[in-house]
Amino acid sequence: MPLANEREELIANIKPSSFDQAMVEMRAAVGSDHVLVDNEALARYSRDTIPWQRTCSVVVYPSSRDEICAIVKIAAQHRLPVWTFSKGKNWGYGATMAAQNGAVILILERMNRILEVNEDLAYAVIEPGVTYKQLADHLKSRAIKLWADCTDSTPEGSVIGNALDRGLGHTAYGDHFGNLCGLEVVLANGEVIQTGAAPPDSPAWHTFKWGTGPYLEGLFSQSNFGIVTRAGIWLMPEPEAFEAFFCEIEHEEHLPAVVDSLRRLALAGAVRGTAHLINDVLCLSMLMQYPHELREGQPCLSDDARRELRSRQGITPWSLTSGLYGTVAQVQANRALIRRELKPYGTLTFIDRRELARLEQLIGLVKRTQQLPFASGLGRLLKNGLIGRAPLEVFELVRHMVPILQGVPTEFIVRFAYFKSRQDRPQSDVNPARDGCGLIWFTSVVPLTGSHVNRVLDLCRPLFREHGFDFSVSLIAVNPRSAKLLMQIFYDKADSTETARAGGLYEDLCESTVRAGYQQYRANVASMHRLLEPVPEYQRLLDSLKRAVDPCGTLAPGRYGIGSA
Amino acid sequence: MPLANEREELIANIKPSSFDQAMVEMRAAVGSDHVLVDNEALARYSRDTIPWQRTCSVVVYPSSRDEICAIVKIAAQHRLPVWTFSKGKNWGYGATMAAQNGAVILILERMNRILEVNEDLAYAVIEPGVTYKQLADHLKSRAIKLWADCTDSTPEGSVIGNALDRGLGHTAYGDHFGNLCGLEVVLANGEVIQTGAAPPDSPAWHTFKWGTGPYLEGLFSQSNFGIVTRAGIWLMPEPEAFEAFFCEIEHEEHLPAVVDSLRRLALAGAVRGTAHLINDVLCLSMLMQYPHELREGQPCLSDDARRELRSRQGITPWSLTSGLYGTVAQVQANRALIRRELKPYGTLTFIDRRELARLEQLIGLVKRTQQLPFASGLGRLLKNGLIGRAPLEVFELVRHMVPILQGVPTEFIVRFAYFKSRQDRPQSDVNPARDGCGLIWFTSVVPLTGSHVNRVLDLCRPLFREHGFDFSVSLIAVNPRSAKLLMQIFYDKADSTETARAGGLYEDLCESTVRAGYQQYRANVASMHRLLEPVPEYQRLLDSLKRAVDPCGTLAPGRYGIGSA
Repeated sequence: MPLANEREELIANIKPSSFDQAMVEMRAAVGSDHVLVDNEALARYSRDTIPWQRTCSVVVYPSSRDEICAIVKIAAQHRLPVWTFSKGKNWGYGATMAAQNGAVILILERMNRILEVNEDLAYAVIEPGVTYKQLADHLKSRAIKLWADCTDSTPEGSVIGNALDRGLGHTAYGDHFGNLCGLEVVLANGEVIQTGAAPPDSPAWHTFKWGTGPYLEGLFSQSNFGIVTRAGIWLMPEPEAFEAFFCEIEHEEHLPAVVDSLRRLALAGAVRGTAHLINDVLCLSMLMQYPHELREGQPCLSDDARRELRSRQGITPWSLTSGLYGTVAQVQANRALIRRELKPYGTLTFIDRRELARLEQLIGLVKRTQQLPFASGLGRLLKNGLIGRAPLEVFELVRHMVPILQGVPTEFIVRFAYFKSRQDRPQSDVNPARDGCGLIWFTSVVPLTGSHVNRVLDLCRPLFREHGFDFSVSLIAVNPRSAKLLMQIFYDKADSTETARAGGLYEDLCESTVRAGYQQYRANVASMHRLLEPVPEYQRLLDSLKRAVDPCGTLAPGRYGIGSA
Repeated sequence: MPLANEREELIANIKPSSFDQAMVEMRAAVGSDHVLVDNEALARYSRDTIPWQRTCSVVVYPSSRDEICAIVKIAAQHRLPVWTFSKGKNWGYGATMAAQNGAVILILERMNRILEVNEDLAYAVIEPGVTYKQLADHLKSRAIKLWADCTDSTPEGSVIGNALDRGLGHTAYGDHFGNLCGLEVVLANGEVIQTGAAPPDSPAWHTFKWGTGPYLEGLFSQSNFGIVTRAGIWLMPEPEAFEAFFCEIEHEEHLPAVVDSLRRLALAGAVRGTAHLINDVLCLSMLMQYPHELREGQPCLSDDARRELRSRQGITPWSLTSGLYGTVAQVQANRALIRRELKPYGTLTFIDRRELARLEQLIGLVKRTQQLPFASGLGRLLKNGLIGRAPLEVFELVRHMVPILQGVPTEFIVRFAYFKSRQDRPQSDVNPARDGCGLIWFTSVVPLTGSHVNRVLDLCRPLFREHGFDFSVSLIAVNPRSAKLLMQIFYDKADSTETARAGGLYEDLCESTVRAGYQQYRANVASMHRLLEPVPEYQRLLDSLKRAVDPCGTLAPGRYGIGSA
């Protein structure tokens, strides 16, 4: 792993004297404590759970917009590329890694103010360092009747960072980018703009998305046209009624019909959340660590082994999860529609808040009972009689899923990143990048029809098998007309052969899906340079826009394939 | 009115020889029949219902994307500005007028193919010449169970043109720009791009809005960065149940509470459509022509005269209209919520399809009865007994409003543009620009709260009075958090003093609202140059983006204030 003593070699086009001068200026701008060049820091910000890595040259922690302006100007003057990360928790896509070695890494975690919450108009204005947990806690502690959508990854993730990268959550506000409104942005020339052309301090800046003139906020998502230093984010008024619903799909062959039902339900507004449909391997990764003993010398599990595991864990080949939100009558109307559509294909369970509380009590009871050595039989009896045939882990999972559907983050779910890790999953302080876990995300966008979903699954499943990996996938409805197929390549990072195979699988997935006409939803930092290859005119347009606002190529050159030149 | 013989003078920076050469080349590109320079054509495309006008130098009607590419290249070479209009029915904002004299006007009405309708995924792919009527007829004649949202203006308007200018309709798909997905665009260099970075022929191009990398479609709305030659537009699956609802608000002082209720209803998803709340003057303009006899020598109506007119026409100071869409149970749940919120402030009427049919029968019956001279008493009896105390005109209006709420366009409503015209409102072939009507739109964006709405109304109402105009306004919920306040300046274009006063009022409205922090939603072509004045950094950003993609300033220079140099 290349570290700081190799730094100067890696910064190809910078004279060392210029780099040193830049450091002097950056320290003056943000304070010496907030400019790190020690080996430990550089190593920490140069890796993720993906097989590739880059070596950065310095990590800077600005505390304000003005400090960012200063850093950007210094970097431009010295021709240093600056890669900005809000919190750096984008595990599996690159976390805090630049696309090239030698970059300046900007971490915005010190900019973590919640500047405004407007309860009537249901939005918050926050800085990029604000986390899901911080925002949820803020709302709860002040009894503000608004929910902030969150992902099922770490509660320490950045709300703005995830939204700008177009991450998805679980509620009706799960399209995080779609719910951003009103950005303050530092440009590569150090100027600051507010999107939307509203007069300064306009009261509609965070309520009206399109603004006057061109809608420009899209330019700052999945790209490198500026550094967002403040944003409005729409929040969901706490509904009168809430229910989680789960649909367990017993037969793989019903999947296309379920997908078509899901589309109709979303179009009809019955499913308003970004529904998640996960397969058995992904579900297993949330329940346990990898069952190496069942591999029988093969690189991955056989169909029989998966079937056996499903039965042991009480899960089905596919499971659908989403939430119902509204008045009691709205929820009732939508529940009826969901029953009508999905009943033929699976077992439906609806869980409201009262039932969740009961479930939590039961889990507590069973756990306490099981701890008493003489009462383990009673524990089993309780579990089987009161909860059902599925093991406790499934109910633990459900207990943690349901709050996420209400915008309450947990680090319980993202422990699946440790599926193939040789260390046990931590109970807290989950950090798969730090802990050497192996996980690559691969995501395709598909129209939300059974036939398109099947086509991409049929394309990708054999590639996983060929490369010796278990096929792990979730389908997430991005909108009523499209889904992202999010695949997980779980691998053992301590095994260099398996690590190489994982990278090979990722590259094959990119190539095969794009050749079949399906674009990527997000890309990891090591593969971004190929994203625009199929569309050269579009590449030229983006590059010329980039040159116009960032002629020195200061801001994240090559991010999402733009301005890599 | 300056006409074509003055054309050469007006094209300040073009040598006549160069212009003539450009004409030769354009005729070769699209055919002589499709390049008009006769006085009558130039006059027709140089005016609108607004008090300002511009003189264009040529009108070109390309029939394809490739012809547009050719025209753009010719124009760039000869330094001619090109202003593109899909159908040119944007009455009150500039219709087919450029911001400067001497422009090449491109009309895309020949590009009117409906290229695809996907019933499962609920979208259409169309060219810019496709009209609301054409699309609605296409769906109906093929029994496709999808609705295309329309405006309440002419059925001959362009679906794409209106969406790119961020026009609004009435259904749950009323945010027209928000429902565009996947654009094909001709750039100023003659290159063609498809937005979203999907591989060519990607099946998700029209289902997934954000694409991969930056979301760029916003760049092409309310701007001049390219000419959209094809677009996907999301359509609404025909719901099981539909109801129109009307709320008549008797007391002006209830307005803020109604606005707050509307916001809560929209946030709760009960009102999914872009609800319209109109005041008495606007409502009167839909029912009748201006009652000059009630002015009593004053430039506009007194409060007493308005009260008297309201009573005579059976209308209230404010009226709210929207639609309910969904399953029977969903509509029922939402209706209950609407009743709970709005009942305290007004009279609620819900009209479903069956009741609409009954209303139509009754109107027919009354009309037929009234036509019989001996039976006019019977007609009055029928009307009063069966329909109520309001005059027939109100029911005619309702009869035409309800189909619009289902995406069926009509030219009945837009006849309000003739409010102050000296000619009678036409029964068909409505065209206020041709017929010399006087109408300027002015639109502010406000957060959807009673206090913000009141603040802007209180700011603008006295300005109307000062300039001698009746205060005509509608509030349209753009999203659950904001509304546009759309004001109508009706004036008599044959009266030059009143015309000058109308222009003065418009300018005062622009200045006062922006000074108070409220931006404009759309701007007319004569005032666009001032839009970006309050935000100089933003202006610099837009101008530098514009220079990057359009260095010769070929495409609509100055549109929405961009690249006016």
